[in-house]
Amino acid sequence: MPLTSPDRTTGPLMVIGGAEDKLRKRTILKEFVSASGGADARIALIPTASSLGDEVVEVYDALFRRLGAGEVVPVRPQSREEAHDPDLVKAVGEATGVFMTGGNQLKLSAIICGTPLGDAIVEAHERGAVVGGTSAGASIQSSHMVAFGVGGATPKQRMTQVAAGLGLVKSAVIDQHFDQRNRYGRLLMIVAQSPQLLGIGVDEDTCALITVEEDADEVPHEVLRVIGRGSVTIFDPASIVSNAHEAKRSSPLLASGVLLHVLPAGAAYDLTTRTLVPQPAAIDPEDAAELAEAQRDMRQLARDIAAADASPAALRRRLARTRTKIGPNPDPLEGPVS
Amino acid sequence: MPLTSPDRTTGPLMVIGGAEDKLRKRTILKEFVSASGGADARIALIPTASSLGDEVVEVYDALFRRLGAGEVVPVRPQSREEAHDPDLVKAVGEATGVFMTGGNQLKLSAIICGTPLGDAIVEAHERGAVVGGTSAGASIQSSHMVAFGVGGATPKQRMTQVAAGLGLVKSAVIDQHFDQRNRYGRLLMIVAQSPQLLGIGVDEDTCALITVEEDADEVPHEVLRVIGRGSVTIFDPASIVSNAHEAKRSSPLLASGVLLHVLPAGAAYDLTTRTLVPQPAAIDPEDAAELAEAQRDMRQLARDIAAADASPAALRRRLARTRTKIGPNPDPLEGPVS
Repeated sequence: MPLTSPDRTTGPLMVIGGAEDKLRKRTILKEFVSASGGADARIALIPTASSLGDEVVEVYDALFRRLGAGEVVPVRPQSREEAHDPDLVKAVGEATGVFMTGGNQLKLSAIICGTPLGDAIVEAHERGAVVGGTSAGASIQSSHMVAFGVGGATPKQRMTQVAAGLGLVKSAVIDQHFDQRNRYGRLLMIVAQSPQLLGIGVDEDTCALITVEEDADEVPHEVLRVIGRGSVTIFDPASIVSNAHEAKRSSPLLASGVLLHVLPAGAAYDLTTRTLVPQPAAIDPEDAAELAEAQRDMRQLARDIAAADASPAALRRRLARTRTKIGPNPDPLEGPVS
Repeated sequence: MPLTSPDRTTGPLMVIGGAEDKLRKRTILKEFVSASGGADARIALIPTASSLGDEVVEVYDALFRRLGAGEVVPVRPQSREEAHDPDLVKAVGEATGVFMTGGNQLKLSAIICGTPLGDAIVEAHERGAVVGGTSAGASIQSSHMVAFGVGGATPKQRMTQVAAGLGLVKSAVIDQHFDQRNRYGRLLMIVAQSPQLLGIGVDEDTCALITVEEDADEVPHEVLRVIGRGSVTIFDPASIVSNAHEAKRSSPLLASGVLLHVLPAGAAYDLTTRTLVPQPAAIDPEDAAELAEAQRDMRQLARDIAAADASPAALRRRLARTRTKIGPNPDPLEGPVS
């Protein structure tokens, strides 16, 4: 499919599936503050989606400051009119990071999208600021937004509604609380009806971090990397066969040939080429040490086998010596786990 | 991938996702009785999975007789020893249909698989009898069986266990109550660990009917057709990239490049070639009548356009006549739905 190259100057997007850890490791929020500039960060905090305005502001203000953010400015329009307020627009215009909280994404789109404040968020992204959001604040980032809908694994006609989002993630629809609220069905319904969209489902306490990276030929790609406890699920419906244009009422939909990617922390997916980015195998330090020892043993075994032909007596002496020192050695060919 | 041709003589398999309708349309159970031979059917009813033995026998006995089955014989071994009982083996040996109820599939495999009774079920299938089962009775039909596990959309290491099933559906693992109990994750975990298996998830009140059909070159194929209210979900992991061999404890799994097919009633999937079977578009009679009328109107419009050039006066007269008869006609180019 035709894909335009992303702009090199755009900032990272952090698409968080809701319920990100706020008390323990805070991996995702720490990454947001750090990407926003740490002590130099000026974070515009947009709690508009939430019905708990002040409390939400207090929580994230405390969190971001605790994690070392230089400055946190609440930006809380409660109407489209307030989303024209030059002070609020200026706060976003000067931000190094913009964070949108959870709540009702239709409230967020109703108040912000297509206003000077909405435009300021898009411009912040384009000039290189970090834009992040959780739950409703995740949904709003895609061009097409899940407005609301029901749970369930099987896609059914009319189980969900689409509205327009900010469009920071283009040609995509983002869903959140994906595992926890069983949203396979509704995201599949959307891509079955709109196969030009990539479906992106983000679990709770999980973040799709989207940045522009250059390949070996210096061509920029949009790459999605996964951070946090859960997974990011991607539906690529480019080759889908579906009956979405003729399925009646609430009947189950045909959605055949969808390419599925479930990506846990550490995995990366190239949104520009729609392919998995190969990762070096993650080996934990303990395993690495064990592996190195097993490799040494194997090399010694090879030498012992060669030596046995040359001088059996010398080998017997060496083996007796080694056994005394380190005890009977398990066969290294069996490896550290068998 | 190399696939062996299925045997032409094997009987249909009915893999039912649990909670099949027993009171209203009974589409699935009706199909089972009819495929078993209707008035000539001799159905061996195996309620071994259930802890409610007698009650389950009474329900299905009443159902199958109500739906016209000639004979229903309960076959209820409660131990491996009883699964050697020649009377029970004979009942299955003479059956035109075998039905296994829901319950605990590990109980079913523990008591039946690898006994003369288990062998008799496989032989019944091979000689052309219908073998059907719901819930646990569905799981047991695949070569690899989900023993138990937890729900959730995201695949995690160790979220489920595999045991050996009857192997009527080869190189596959079947899960049931798929939509209702949110079993995407556990079925994905299994195919991530065993990418030679096809994952088949069947919703409640839904049946995967598997039969051998010949293609145009008389080559037999195993074809799965969907009956009932929900969908059958298929994971084809042939090209999967996964970290299942190295993921720790209960961490989320990488499962990238899985081909996903969600198939509602009426859809068909070729298990031999692993492709969707193209279906003629299902048009309901009312739509068909409307479409035929629109086609007539379109042809008349084309004639009117041609006639207008030849004789504008004649056209005006005809249009005036038509309008009087049937009133103003909406533009047929807009179609019946717009």
